[in-house]
Amino acid sequence: MYREEIKVLDCTIRDGGLINNHYFEDNFVREVYKAVSAAGVDYMEIGYRCSRGIMSPDEFGKWKFCDEDDIRRTIDGIESDTKLSVMVDVGRVKKEDILPCEDSAIDMVRVATYVKDVDKAIDLVNDAADKGYETTVNIMAISRALENELDAALAQLEQESKADVVYIVDSFGALYSESTHYLVNKYKKFLKTKEVGMHAHNNQQLGYANTIQAIIDGCNFVDGTIYGIGRAAGNCPLELLIGFLKNPKFDLRPILEVISKELIPLREKIEWGYLLPYAITGMFNEHPRAAMALRKTEDRDNYLKFFESMSAEGID
Amino acid sequence: MYREEIKVLDCTIRDGGLINNHYFEDNFVREVYKAVSAAGVDYMEIGYRCSRGIMSPDEFGKWKFCDEDDIRRTIDGIESDTKLSVMVDVGRVKKEDILPCEDSAIDMVRVATYVKDVDKAIDLVNDAADKGYETTVNIMAISRALENELDAALAQLEQESKADVVYIVDSFGALYSESTHYLVNKYKKFLKTKEVGMHAHNNQQLGYANTIQAIIDGCNFVDGTIYGIGRAAGNCPLELLIGFLKNPKFDLRPILEVISKELIPLREKIEWGYLLPYAITGMFNEHPRAAMALRKTEDRDNYLKFFESMSAEGID
Repeated sequence: MYREEIKVLDCTIRDGGLINNHYFEDNFVREVYKAVSAAGVDYMEIGYRCSRGIMSPDEFGKWKFCDEDDIRRTIDGIESDTKLSVMVDVGRVKKEDILPCEDSAIDMVRVATYVKDVDKAIDLVNDAADKGYETTVNIMAISRALENELDAALAQLEQESKADVVYIVDSFGALYSESTHYLVNKYKKFLKTKEVGMHAHNNQQLGYANTIQAIIDGCNFVDGTIYGIGRAAGNCPLELLIGFLKNPKFDLRPILEVISKELIPLREKIEWGYLLPYAITGMFNEHPRAAMALRKTEDRDNYLKFFESMSAEGID
Repeated sequence: MYREEIKVLDCTIRDGGLINNHYFEDNFVREVYKAVSAAGVDYMEIGYRCSRGIMSPDEFGKWKFCDEDDIRRTIDGIESDTKLSVMVDVGRVKKEDILPCEDSAIDMVRVATYVKDVDKAIDLVNDAADKGYETTVNIMAISRALENELDAALAQLEQESKADVVYIVDSFGALYSESTHYLVNKYKKFLKTKEVGMHAHNNQQLGYANTIQAIIDGCNFVDGTIYGIGRAAGNCPLELLIGFLKNPKFDLRPILEVISKELIPLREKIEWGYLLPYAITGMFNEHPRAAMALRKTEDRDNYLKFFESMSAEGID
């Protein structure tokens, strides 16, 4: 028994790019694409589409921009039914940099937004939908959203946007299962004609658990990353999700193989996962920024001092 | 708002001892006791009580036996309201090695058993209860229990045992939240006069999530270990549990401090936590034994080969 509607999106390269400024080797991206394709994953998010006039190519690797040529060269020759997506940030992309879908290697455009920018997100997502893409709106920092503003945004998304999916994004890894349950039900109440998506962070080792909770509550689009890679504590581990889902089209083995070959060596060079400073920012419902800064200092493992500094922050 | 009845038991030394044959330095045990005492943790399980005629002191460290003198010396002078428990395994302890409670440093005796040995467990737990201890029965490998046998065991425990608490023990880290919910409700149906306990393993990063699920469903005794230490994938991390529970008596800070000072250096020497071979045995609902063996070979990170070997095991 399984729910055929459930779609899995791998965002290894896109979310993982937040720890290395999107400087993945082409071969790494290619191996990930091979693995998710062979595993039957529905979508792979290959990076951001930012405009070069807004974000500098001197500061970020190519997967911050996802030029069509780079994508085509990287996936060339690999047999795949996996669709490709890019994420666009409100304010960081010009519409002219999103080609008509028929001229692009991309199938889906996901618009990342805060609640306050929902009008801009709708403008952007409708442009992408009109160009022929599948589309989503991903509401970030959901654990900080004011109830009345979130309700208004969801009502607007239902009425005014052409997005196929609206995501819950637990940017701070602050949600517990009860809040996940509450939010999925709220989304479903407002979004009668759209699917609900879940993007969970792993600060408190709840990324996978909250994703399962969302599935139980009727969410049909779920994100994961291989070996949980992603900024700070990382994401719901794709391997656990694929191990859980019952649809026979999924095959865990290619994911296990790419973890052994690519992710284990990479984890020696860059850091992500369950580390106490990220657990603490999750508990405080804070951006992991301060924890990320801490990990670059000699105090990286002084958790008590970090906890005290978070507690002491002047909130007035 | 919180549920005052919820009791937290730290089993850092007892479950952690399964990775180092119970050879913890006295100072480490002392620092853990200090930390859990200062954190307001209700119980600390300091090890096993095994009988020397049955288990050899040449093969195991002192926390496999928990001699009264060793306990008293280790906790001497530390201010604490934390009660001490030991675990006893059916078949590995003689009743004569459990003193009357009034002559012991121990407050609680926890009997670990498989469903099939429930009669022996009842015999042992009633002896401990008669000697004045608080008592629990911990049913191991619950994800492998046959429904009819588990039902009969729970009915027997309710009618014949003097145990205060009966635990769900997810030895293989195989439970999902729905199964946790199902089992807590089953336990509550049979155990009208006893509390339900939860001891979760972390193979699939669900140790903490399943513990929260159990609390939601009415379980009032929950186990954790500091930094999740424990055999193979380890346990529900105590720091997350203490961060979650609302009772003002709990203080996370001493736990953070002992992680920095003691657990981070220890993790450099011995291995536990989220590692793919343990995730795989969890998915297969298997003992982590084969994965533990794998981690000592050159194939330690060949996850695909390990997965194939698990799939291929002759089940007839």
